[in-house]
Amino acid sequence: MLEKGKFYGVGVGPGDPELITVKAVKILKEVEVIIAPHTEKKIESTALSIVRPYIGPDTTVLELVFPMIFDKRDLAGAYEKNTSTIKSLLDEGNNVAFLTLGDPMLYSTYIHIYRLLEQTGLSIETIPGVTSFCAAASRAGFPLADGNEVLSIVPATNDDKKLENILRNSDNLVLMKVYKNHRQVVAQLVESGFSENAVMISRCGLDGEEIIYNLNDIEERKPDYLTTVLAKKGMKRL
Amino acid sequence: MLEKGKFYGVGVGPGDPELITVKAVKILKEVEVIIAPHTEKKIESTALSIVRPYIGPDTTVLELVFPMIFDKRDLAGAYEKNTSTIKSLLDEGNNVAFLTLGDPMLYSTYIHIYRLLEQTGLSIETIPGVTSFCAAASRAGFPLADGNEVLSIVPATNDDKKLENILRNSDNLVLMKVYKNHRQVVAQLVESGFSENAVMISRCGLDGEEIIYNLNDIEERKPDYLTTVLAKKGMKRL
Repeated sequence: MLEKGKFYGVGVGPGDPELITVKAVKILKEVEVIIAPHTEKKIESTALSIVRPYIGPDTTVLELVFPMIFDKRDLAGAYEKNTSTIKSLLDEGNNVAFLTLGDPMLYSTYIHIYRLLEQTGLSIETIPGVTSFCAAASRAGFPLADGNEVLSIVPATNDDKKLENILRNSDNLVLMKVYKNHRQVVAQLVESGFSENAVMISRCGLDGEEIIYNLNDIEERKPDYLTTVLAKKGMKRL
Repeated sequence: MLEKGKFYGVGVGPGDPELITVKAVKILKEVEVIIAPHTEKKIESTALSIVRPYIGPDTTVLELVFPMIFDKRDLAGAYEKNTSTIKSLLDEGNNVAFLTLGDPMLYSTYIHIYRLLEQTGLSIETIPGVTSFCAAASRAGFPLADGNEVLSIVPATNDDKKLENILRNSDNLVLMKVYKNHRQVVAQLVESGFSENAVMISRCGLDGEEIIYNLNDIEERKPDYLTTVLAKKGMKRL
């Protein structure tokens, strides 16, 4: 009987190809198939361009489309269809690596694939990666949290009331998905005492990287999709 | 005039030597001096044992003592003394890497050294690392956050009232420093609706690793120093 392949969820890190782990590189060199999730729009996924230097000539690269839709049923359909493609590859004996920008267990397409595949009993290993916000903090010289401080990671797409409660009880913030409503985010940071220590990092470690330390300047920009805001409560520190 | 050395804050990741980044390995091979922070007690720092395979024969390894004390003035004294040692090494033209377990910008000794050194105008670069909680999530198959969910990183050493407020407003939790009062932590998780989805990971990727999915079992253990609890609000999922 043919031995089934192993499935790897591989965190490729925040953008700089050198911020991938030694283990991820090793796996990418060993597997038969590398899968990059992909929206319809883009020419190549960012995760795939990060790992290009590590892919051998005999590896099959497959870009699977996960549409940017918000209808839950359509999205579930796309997850199931793609999982079934992956399962066929594994059943045929291929080892398969599925790429995730940043870390696979944090706001990723991989989480959904993992949930579906773990029910099949196939062998799965997840390789953690450097998150975008850790990279942003290092790049901007902006410590995320120290001592007893609480750090909250918050998608800015949450409603105002939830954001307000979180901001009231956190010492430090990472705001994700800021591109959708950055003006409102800035207003809430000012209101909650986060205005003096904040930094916005766009395209960290990639072409077109931008770091902005002034909230007024942040308010005036239309941020890139890959943008994170870091903020700390209290008096000016930087 | 002698050119001054460059200072690197290097995240070495959560424990497995292969979960270090390609960039960190490159820097560790290039620098003249590697510094590992160190308490009086231990024989060798965990961060240092992680990077042993990557240290060349000509590199100087220096273990600097940062005492486990809670008197702020004594601690500030230790930071200043050690920063001054590092500064001398840089002034003499050595490139110096300072090791941090996990990520350098998150609950680390490095943050304090960085704050002191950035005032000197010396050249500094921080290399982010894989955090302990990302590694724990991958290892335990426990997604940290998805969609609009809020993830809070909380040192369990905070007082009850603050913990309660954070638990009320978060969808997902990472509890750090659980070893100090793990029984109280378990009680608060139960009270705040986090009891059905929780996992405790000790010594992730190191000898003696333990993963415990049941809160009752967690309550009965005395956790290791390197222990993280992950939890998600709501009904049983795992």
